[in-house]
Amino acid sequence: MTYCVGIKVSQGLVFCSDSRTNSGIDQASLSKKTFMFHDPGNCLFYLLVAGNLATTQAVVDQLQKDIATPDVISLFTTSSIREAADYIGQISQNEQTKMGGGGVFQASFIIGGQIAGQAPELAMVYSEGNSITATELMPFLQIGESKYGKPILDRIIKKNTDLQTSALCALVSMDSTLKSNLSVGPPIDIAIYYTDSLQPGENYHLDQDSPYLRQISELWDKKMVESFLQLPPMCQSLS
Amino acid sequence: MTYCVGIKVSQGLVFCSDSRTNSGIDQASLSKKTFMFHDPGNCLFYLLVAGNLATTQAVVDQLQKDIATPDVISLFTTSSIREAADYIGQISQNEQTKMGGGGVFQASFIIGGQIAGQAPELAMVYSEGNSITATELMPFLQIGESKYGKPILDRIIKKNTDLQTSALCALVSMDSTLKSNLSVGPPIDIAIYYTDSLQPGENYHLDQDSPYLRQISELWDKKMVESFLQLPPMCQSLS
Repeated sequence: MTYCVGIKVSQGLVFCSDSRTNSGIDQASLSKKTFMFHDPGNCLFYLLVAGNLATTQAVVDQLQKDIATPDVISLFTTSSIREAADYIGQISQNEQTKMGGGGVFQASFIIGGQIAGQAPELAMVYSEGNSITATELMPFLQIGESKYGKPILDRIIKKNTDLQTSALCALVSMDSTLKSNLSVGPPIDIAIYYTDSLQPGENYHLDQDSPYLRQISELWDKKMVESFLQLPPMCQSLS
Repeated sequence: MTYCVGIKVSQGLVFCSDSRTNSGIDQASLSKKTFMFHDPGNCLFYLLVAGNLATTQAVVDQLQKDIATPDVISLFTTSSIREAADYIGQISQNEQTKMGGGGVFQASFIIGGQIAGQAPELAMVYSEGNSITATELMPFLQIGESKYGKPILDRIIKKNTDLQTSALCALVSMDSTLKSNLSVGPPIDIAIYYTDSLQPGENYHLDQDSPYLRQISELWDKKMVESFLQLPPMCQSLS
């Protein structure tokens, strides 16, 4: 399983992914799920991947191959995030069809970044190849095991939330998912992109032993329990 | 959609259910999902239902019919929670098969209560008719939309958690689910059963306008945001 979240706020974009991959619980290993594609001065994209590992690896390979090949359509020649998402969806569909289709080799993607002269954008590519883009009313997109980590994003992420707060919120969202689903696991990758920089911002790689990851996890746990214990008791309030 | 949770602690049992039912979002209505079956001095059961409404209604009808018919197997003649769960699973399977099966008419159940001379028990009946029982290590069981409401239960419910705290925790778990899934909705029913009482404990019915439900919802929201804002910032901690 996988959990990835992409966030779009006025200041820029945040990308967060786990690293656990498995085919059954007795065959677990680690795999990077955040990929950067950078054409300096022209564009910068981050890609997050979820689903069948053979499909996502084939898609990432093809994206890299197309960039390296002159005069073919690639991420660096797309003129909008929607076009980039369609292009990724097409490669993903081709790959799934090649393997026989039937929903067995499904994969989904979050693609975000900025093309020079345009605003930063964020999109999610469904396994079927179609896509949706983030909006002010829907400033984050999730793929993989998305439910456990959604409540805190719903409460914190707004259009004007700053990038550092957004990144921390992505981490707390990831922590809730790690706690409830054993098939989502560290290292956690977090990438921050600042609007109009056209270059990578901070990158954080938090492994299992990261003191900060442990601190956030323990503190959040403690604060949830403390908050709960401060609620007005049911019997007194309803009798 | 539905969300129901049953909790088993030393002091007794808690049952909590929502009331929203729908076939598509343009055909939403309300339906009670908590049912009590009481044979004074002999046994008391609570049943929570999720899934296809035709199936769950048929199962509840059959349970009531069997109780009213002399000399047939019924909830009141079962000798353990496992036997009660198997009996419910059999009725559910019969009903689904009658409709053609194929997984379209699925339903799941939580059954819990006490038979005189035995300890209180709690079980979940899968759509396939088989069942699992709650244990000290797994003191709560959920059916329906279970993911949003699981983190707070994981943190609070232990063997020795008192009944009032357990009931409040069920309500907070329900509130998290209401916030994230529009197809789960009030009124919320909460029933508390005290070990060895063999009679119903407190019953709470909280509708949309319940000031207590609103208070819990707003307070929990506020405390989650406050807790988040007290976490140590990522940039300072990791740079």
